Amino acid sequence: MGGKFREQFQSAVENVREEGRYRIFRDIRRKAGAFPQATWFKDTSEQDITVWCSNDYLGMGQNECVVEAVKSAVDAAGTGSGGTRNISGTTRYHVQLEQELASLHQKDAALVLTSGYVANEATLGVMSKILPGLVILSDEMNHASMISGIQRAQKVGVCEKKIFKHNDLADLEVKLKGLPFDAPKLIAFESVYSMDADIAPIKEICDLADKYNALTYIDEVHAVGMYGPTGGGVCEERGLMDRIDIIQGTLAKAYGMVGGYIAADSVIIDAVRSMASGFIFTTSIPPSTAAGALRSVKVLKVTPEKRAMHQERANALKARFREAGYDFIDGETHIVPLMVGDPVKCQAISDRLIEDFGIYAQPINFPTVPRGTERLRFTPSPFHTDAMMDELMSALEIVWAEFGLKKSNVA
Amino acid sequence: MGGKFREQFQSAVENVREEGRYRIFRDIRRKAGAFPQATWFKDTSEQDITVWCSNDYLGMGQNECVVEAVKSAVDAAGTGSGGTRNISGTTRYHVQLEQELASLHQKDAALVLTSGYVANEATLGVMSKILPGLVILSDEMNHASMISGIQRAQKVGVCEKKIFKHNDLADLEVKLKGLPFDAPKLIAFESVYSMDADIAPIKEICDLADKYNALTYIDEVHAVGMYGPTGGGVCEERGLMDRIDIIQGTLAKAYGMVGGYIAADSVIIDAVRSMASGFIFTTSIPPSTAAGALRSVKVLKVTPEKRAMHQERANALKARFREAGYDFIDGETHIVPLMVGDPVKCQAISDRLIEDFGIYAQPINFPTVPRGTERLRFTPSPFHTDAMMDELMSALEIVWAEFGLKKSNVA
Repeated sequence: MGGKFREQFQSAVENVREEGRYRIFRDIRRKAGAFPQATWFKDTSEQDITVWCSNDYLGMGQNECVVEAVKSAVDAAGTGSGGTRNISGTTRYHVQLEQELASLHQKDAALVLTSGYVANEATLGVMSKILPGLVILSDEMNHASMISGIQRAQKVGVCEKKIFKHNDLADLEVKLKGLPFDAPKLIAFESVYSMDADIAPIKEICDLADKYNALTYIDEVHAVGMYGPTGGGVCEERGLMDRIDIIQGTLAKAYGMVGGYIAADSVIIDAVRSMASGFIFTTSIPPSTAAGALRSVKVLKVTPEKRAMHQERANALKARFREAGYDFIDGETHIVPLMVGDPVKCQAISDRLIEDFGIYAQPINFPTVPRGTERLRFTPSPFHTDAMMDELMSALEIVWAEFGLKKSNVA
Repeated sequence: MGGKFREQFQSAVENVREEGRYRIFRDIRRKAGAFPQATWFKDTSEQDITVWCSNDYLGMGQNECVVEAVKSAVDAAGTGSGGTRNISGTTRYHVQLEQELASLHQKDAALVLTSGYVANEATLGVMSKILPGLVILSDEMNHASMISGIQRAQKVGVCEKKIFKHNDLADLEVKLKGLPFDAPKLIAFESVYSMDADIAPIKEICDLADKYNALTYIDEVHAVGMYGPTGGGVCEERGLMDRIDIIQGTLAKAYGMVGGYIAADSVIIDAVRSMASGFIFTTSIPPSTAAGALRSVKVLKVTPEKRAMHQERANALKARFREAGYDFIDGETHIVPLMVGDPVKCQAISDRLIEDFGIYAQPINFPTVPRGTERLRFTPSPFHTDAMMDELMSALEIVWAEFGLKKSNVA
């Protein structure tokens, strides 16, 4: 590699560093059966920690039934699938998982992709080929994978993107009103927004979609498994699954595995299955991953008490933050963002918490959130005990004082 | 969904059907310990089959060490990783796997992504942000994932794509010569091309890269684990690893798992790690996937006899095809494409082989290969016995006669 190339790579990394978003990954190992406990591998030593920032929201990644399903599928069918879905990579497990996911969302069909990211990117990315001249109306807070999918749609076909203000129905309606009724339109949004812990006005968005003749696409990755009587997400909880054309979800968060999916009318699934490059030309998820996910979806369908316990734990943490007067987002979801408002302090607090208290909460800085709103994002699970919360509160008390951070609503 | 939308989805699927590329996935289940044997689930019945088209080229997906590594990591650390690499999703297994892959390719560093597809798309896709004004010179036969990555690079930054004729050094040189010496350039190509079973003139391409000041990017997904003294791919076999700037590989084929990676100078890895959306914003591969891949890479490093056996089996099949006079691509790799030259016959032959002989070889039709070159793609592994080859040859003899297909080089 020539000197000039090297300089360009170096300067790209320097820019990331200057923007305060250079990331050092913490090297950990979770302890199955003792979640959220884990081991942190520092340079030369090891330390026991409590993980407070995992998206294995319900601890299903250590659920005995799920672990057993994975291991027995490995014994029966081996590890990798050995092929794309079309070339020997479709197995019994994949077929059954897709049937189960379709049933979960009360749709005709479902399609499993290698990740939630790929599900968004491949599905949104192929829409402009199916619906030439498509206008995608995209919530300004949509995840990077949806943004990437829309960029792809614009590159491979004729597609316009219109960004509407976050959860802003008036702004969305202005944008819809400006488009011809017959023009193909798709409203892309999320149910639970991961960083602000808020929920979209789904019903009202669907009403606008009906009024202005638009398709609806919802990302429920931070909701499936956790909301609704059978874990079908916020749309199930609110009785709105039939109002959404394409529901996208993940197997990597509440379901404790990896992989993503969409559920929709069979003709939509057939079109994406037949045309989306990111689905067609990649090795399918391993049989054991599909088997574990299948078990996890089935378990969570019939255990609403896990969802109740999850909400109870999130509410318990929010109550403590409220009583102690911390500045946090006191929302209606299971995600509890504790505001810091400074990138350097946010990183330093995270470092101090893990090093001296064994408490692991990753700092969330720009560009994931706007500058000045840097935060620690806590995700209490059913396995975060009162004792763990006691430890967390004591540690925060010390650290907040040390860093001279104010509490918002106490004298 | 409105009637017009439905029609558009239906007509998109109809177009796929008319182009002869509507796919019906075969629902199978491999038998661990008896690879390449599997069960095929037909509508209402089951049938034993021999898989002849898997990319689990060395059968590592059922290797006892790999299976054991996966299961013990699931026991130790659970199933999913529960987070992105930055938010609790980096584990001991990921770190060790990346060190092992860097060592395999004699590079500073490596980065594991969720698939080979994503590795190509995310890495090539971010290059225009790092090297503004980049010109990517792309072999016309490059895989869909590389094409998608280049499209992304063009969408998110200033980037020009120049396609050169397949493995054509003269054409590549003409294109390089037309560009300013100081302009950032990257030559993107594969080592083993999966559908034609041929190998790029890697050394000569590197010579041109040096002469015209270009970076080199090679996709070795159909070679890693299978070529070179320790499985480092064709570049290792030919002593060229240090001539390539970015080596991309997969864990989903010879290594029998799932996931993809790049290996390169540490500053390149750091830039991709810090800037590529498809790496940053997605759940990392499960700890057990990383553990299985790590074991598989280690095993294949020290078992050249598996590579020798693989080549021996491929040569045995090629010898039989040659003797029987079939029209096949008699190349230097382990992939054995048997030409049919008609999409309808190709599908029908594949159907007949699996239904009546239990032989599973997927038809490869347009657009994966050019029209008129439709083929069955055989991938003999070390576990494909002489007896299986006897059965295959008998079946082909019958079916070739039935379909009135000529043999090329017999009277």
